[in-house]
Amino acid sequence: MKVQKQIAQKAYHANHSFIGRYQRLIKQEVIPYQYQVLCDEAEGAEKSHVIANFINAGKALRGEDVGDGFYGMVFQDSDAAKWLEAAAYSLTVFPDAQLEETVDKLVDLIAEAQDEDGYLNTYFTIKDKDKRWTNLLEGHELYCSGHMMEAACAYYEATGKDKLLKVMLKNAAHIYKVFVEEGKEGYPGHPEIELALMRMYHLTGEDYCLELAKHFVDVRGVDNEFFLKEAKKRDWKVWGMIPEDTDYNQSSAPVREQKDAVGHSVRAVYLYTGMADLASEIEEKELERACKTLWDSITQRRMYVTGGIGSTGIGEAFTVDYDLPGDTAYCETCASIGLMFFASRMLESEIKGDYADVMERAFYNTVLAGMQLDGKRFFYVNPLECIPGITGKAVTHKHDLTMRPKWYACACCPPNTARLISSFGKYAYGENADTVYCHLFAGGEVSFENGLKLSCETEYPYGFTVNYKVLAGSSRLAIHIPGWSKKYDVTVNGNSFIQDLQDGYLYMDVKEGDAIVITLDEKPYYVYASSKIPQLSGYTAVCRGPLVYCFEGVDNEEDVLGLSLKRGGTLQVADFDKELLSGTVKITAEGVRREAMEGLYSTDIPKEKECDAIAVPYYTWCNRGENQMRVWMNEVR
Amino acid sequence: MKVQKQIAQKAYHANHSFIGRYQRLIKQEVIPYQYQVLCDEAEGAEKSHVIANFINAGKALRGEDVGDGFYGMVFQDSDAAKWLEAAAYSLTVFPDAQLEETVDKLVDLIAEAQDEDGYLNTYFTIKDKDKRWTNLLEGHELYCSGHMMEAACAYYEATGKDKLLKVMLKNAAHIYKVFVEEGKEGYPGHPEIELALMRMYHLTGEDYCLELAKHFVDVRGVDNEFFLKEAKKRDWKVWGMIPEDTDYNQSSAPVREQKDAVGHSVRAVYLYTGMADLASEIEEKELERACKTLWDSITQRRMYVTGGIGSTGIGEAFTVDYDLPGDTAYCETCASIGLMFFASRMLESEIKGDYADVMERAFYNTVLAGMQLDGKRFFYVNPLECIPGITGKAVTHKHDLTMRPKWYACACCPPNTARLISSFGKYAYGENADTVYCHLFAGGEVSFENGLKLSCETEYPYGFTVNYKVLAGSSRLAIHIPGWSKKYDVTVNGNSFIQDLQDGYLYMDVKEGDAIVITLDEKPYYVYASSKIPQLSGYTAVCRGPLVYCFEGVDNEEDVLGLSLKRGGTLQVADFDKELLSGTVKITAEGVRREAMEGLYSTDIPKEKECDAIAVPYYTWCNRGENQMRVWMNEVR
Repeated sequence: MKVQKQIAQKAYHANHSFIGRYQRLIKQEVIPYQYQVLCDEAEGAEKSHVIANFINAGKALRGEDVGDGFYGMVFQDSDAAKWLEAAAYSLTVFPDAQLEETVDKLVDLIAEAQDEDGYLNTYFTIKDKDKRWTNLLEGHELYCSGHMMEAACAYYEATGKDKLLKVMLKNAAHIYKVFVEEGKEGYPGHPEIELALMRMYHLTGEDYCLELAKHFVDVRGVDNEFFLKEAKKRDWKVWGMIPEDTDYNQSSAPVREQKDAVGHSVRAVYLYTGMADLASEIEEKELERACKTLWDSITQRRMYVTGGIGSTGIGEAFTVDYDLPGDTAYCETCASIGLMFFASRMLESEIKGDYADVMERAFYNTVLAGMQLDGKRFFYVNPLECIPGITGKAVTHKHDLTMRPKWYACACCPPNTARLISSFGKYAYGENADTVYCHLFAGGEVSFENGLKLSCETEYPYGFTVNYKVLAGSSRLAIHIPGWSKKYDVTVNGNSFIQDLQDGYLYMDVKEGDAIVITLDEKPYYVYASSKIPQLSGYTAVCRGPLVYCFEGVDNEEDVLGLSLKRGGTLQVADFDKELLSGTVKITAEGVRREAMEGLYSTDIPKEKECDAIAVPYYTWCNRGENQMRVWMNEVR
Repeated sequence: MKVQKQIAQKAYHANHSFIGRYQRLIKQEVIPYQYQVLCDEAEGAEKSHVIANFINAGKALRGEDVGDGFYGMVFQDSDAAKWLEAAAYSLTVFPDAQLEETVDKLVDLIAEAQDEDGYLNTYFTIKDKDKRWTNLLEGHELYCSGHMMEAACAYYEATGKDKLLKVMLKNAAHIYKVFVEEGKEGYPGHPEIELALMRMYHLTGEDYCLELAKHFVDVRGVDNEFFLKEAKKRDWKVWGMIPEDTDYNQSSAPVREQKDAVGHSVRAVYLYTGMADLASEIEEKELERACKTLWDSITQRRMYVTGGIGSTGIGEAFTVDYDLPGDTAYCETCASIGLMFFASRMLESEIKGDYADVMERAFYNTVLAGMQLDGKRFFYVNPLECIPGITGKAVTHKHDLTMRPKWYACACCPPNTARLISSFGKYAYGENADTVYCHLFAGGEVSFENGLKLSCETEYPYGFTVNYKVLAGSSRLAIHIPGWSKKYDVTVNGNSFIQDLQDGYLYMDVKEGDAIVITLDEKPYYVYASSKIPQLSGYTAVCRGPLVYCFEGVDNEEDVLGLSLKRGGTLQVADFDKELLSGTVKITAEGVRREAMEGLYSTDIPKEKECDAIAVPYYTWCNRGENQMRVWMNEVR
């Protein structure tokens, strides 16, 4: 049995909190804009064609000739799925009949695009039915099904409408038939369906969903030449992925034997999420241990301070331990979202502050940075340094951009961000029969299955006081104190509450009317990198609360490369400025600026002068035009 | 007319100087070992097959069936050419009848591999005669001819034997016929023949060599779609190079309009060398200006402190201004050799210390680092940082190795190093009718065409006194004082000689019996990098004389990443240790060592302790097993 589980989407309303403002932005800007994109009606954005693909797939199934009716990536369907999932989450908070109608129409199109046997994928249905299931390495059929299953669960939870859920249960049953009953060999080239099947199982209790998830986890990497054998049997390809590169898709060994987080980082964390969910569900210790080993590999040796993962654009992948360059970082937005999924599922087998801290780190830094503050442009790649002239220009830095584009040909990240933010409550709050969990501070109101109803008032991450009130019910309450807050105060009904943290959590029994006030450490602080990280040894970063800060040229004489920070220098926190970067707080550090020299090298000690070094939260970077940006700074003393 | 030119190879004998010891190593170890490799008799080395290719080409021309008689790269012939050139240089210093006989036999094989019309290339002769000149982008026919022309010049100069020279004059005449008389379109995919034809012209005075060199320089990039058109005409490829990537081979624009050093760095500097030689020969100001612009592009914005060039392994290429990462640097040995070629030719149109300084920087650091101290192993790639576990392992660091291999499938660098060291005198000394030039300090004896004979006694780069004696004749003498030596003393016949440097040179009139003593600054010094270089801003390096130093794990508790240097800290110079690294001098800096922390990040200021930080010359790195190495160090104060 799981130690605790995520709350239902409907149980949390973020109201006017920081999270609430973001959810409103998703509702007002992102969901309508992304729907325009899906319909190819967004000016200046990459063509999507995804709605048209579903229409054409339906036509093809009815025998109509749609010719070259498919456009986009082989996994184009998943853009619709992720948008639909985000819209579903949003509907639970912001009812909207028109949006619901739009979704219903899309659901109708999806249903019409499903083949009689339950198969659902527009690429293969339009292009070539005979190629179904012949290229698991590249084909993304299971991946797209997974995303649509997630959307189906979300839409059912939001509206009670089960049309899409039935479509996807039928699809899951079809996949079960093919891979379990008929014994077709293989496993997904891009994991996702494992975690989605677990969601379907949690929602419906259908055993075949659990069995199928377990099947894909169990067989992965057991025959680690599967993709090679598959490639030899087919005479077509999508991109020509190398089937021998089993690290890329985490199939070099059975998952229970994997020790290092390797390969494509999104694939990795999606897989680990499914594994973790399954492990706690079936209470399998060996799988739990494998998950912990992989968790440590990421968070102890392969994660950026921003919660970004994936050090290289080559394969959008993890590299090796302690290789964490800021300038050529990949840090895909989706990968940090996936890391939050993984962390959230790890909390289902073990209550430990580390999981919550990593969720928070990923969310407030990389995930939020993935979207422009107005919700209209998106980063796919989130480096920790941007130097116009090099970033996006040098062949080694091509994947890192100096400005957020409107959309991408491979558009996984923008809708992923939308669905994550819209469902933030699931990551923030958890529950079991007798205890409710506050893993992350999330202002608003939340209702738990055991009858406890809680309000949370806070300006977190800019306010450091968190006021909980018990509006109804009684329960054991567990509150996570973030690892970064070395000092904190807690009062219950005005009385000091003193308790040692248990793995990062406080535990108390509460009842209606109780008021719990958490006061966190509002002081900004320096972070130092391990000397094992070649690119960061000797550097420092500035943080406050969960926010990692960065230095942008626009605040710093257009030159952050010449800027160093004084070790232990005072960090001065400005007042909250609601006009600045959609509302933020600047931090001024004591800096030293080196003058530029002639040429490349000099034997003269660079001329330096003291200066203010001004930092803004990393998630707000690149909202004031193209300019230099750095998270990690040289230190002087 | 050239301001001055390189001395003849025979004019310089390095005797027992540092250069002499290296030339002896080339003679005793490298030339015999590399010949074994060429004959496929070196155990554990990559297969070469180059001698066999020449034998098979001869057979093929005689109508014998040699089947799959070619092995290796399309430019495999050039390995033989560079070895032959090195052997020729060596013979001028170390007469060796057996070696000369070996070379003669190879020359016979080469002559037999030449077609009746003058064509010479084993790849095309063995594989497919019909494909000649159909793939200038990838085929390397002109490149291989160029290298063999250089070898022919060198062997004639060394021995007076003209068989190979005649072969290559015939080859040049054939190429002239094809490209000039018959008007075949196109230019070399890999520049080299331009500089080689200039050498042939200098040696023989044959106008068609000069004309052909000028032709290839003139037409390059004028039709910048030539390679694309060529690719469309052929149905075969070598590797499948992208013909649209005109930056890669410096053909995006006519050479006189090129502003930035771009693309494959060896191609670039070989081209610029030919351009510079041609420009001063025909006294063309426009071409000279183009050369200077490209020189500045490299040396002011795209060169490592070690004289390495080419920031990325992707295309073995330059990237953009100020992008100079140490850990993923390419810095091909051949590129620094080519940079010396370029610098040496720039000195033929303008006497300026900068050219000599760059030659010296490239030679004493990257070029020498390219070879193990015993002459038996070679680096192709010369990073400024090596961290076992990351270097050679992370996908972004695969091209950087932690140990020198014995040989390479693409074996351009080892024989290139051999020929450069063996002909060091040409770079060190120059002359015109009334002045002789000492561009670099090179112990030994040197005779100039104007009758001046000079001896130079010095333990440079470890000794900082240079004693010149005029053994015969009289002349104006120009001596370059290296840019790194801020202080220096000069005496002539015991009397202080005071003169302002003219562009880095001292000028004096000398006659037989004169003794000139130069005393340079022996103090080690720190170098600081421009704050425009993101990867190096705030870092420092330690140097002494022309030698850039580095810090290796073996001298520093197996951890250089945790090591910082105190700003302006004392640099203590050890005595010369003839047992250490074939004879070297350690430098001890005042260091600070950070303790490794748990995990990746910490809010605790890293614990530090003062320590000695021990440096050895960069060129000696990786001669004591695999270990960490860093040139650029964090600074603390």
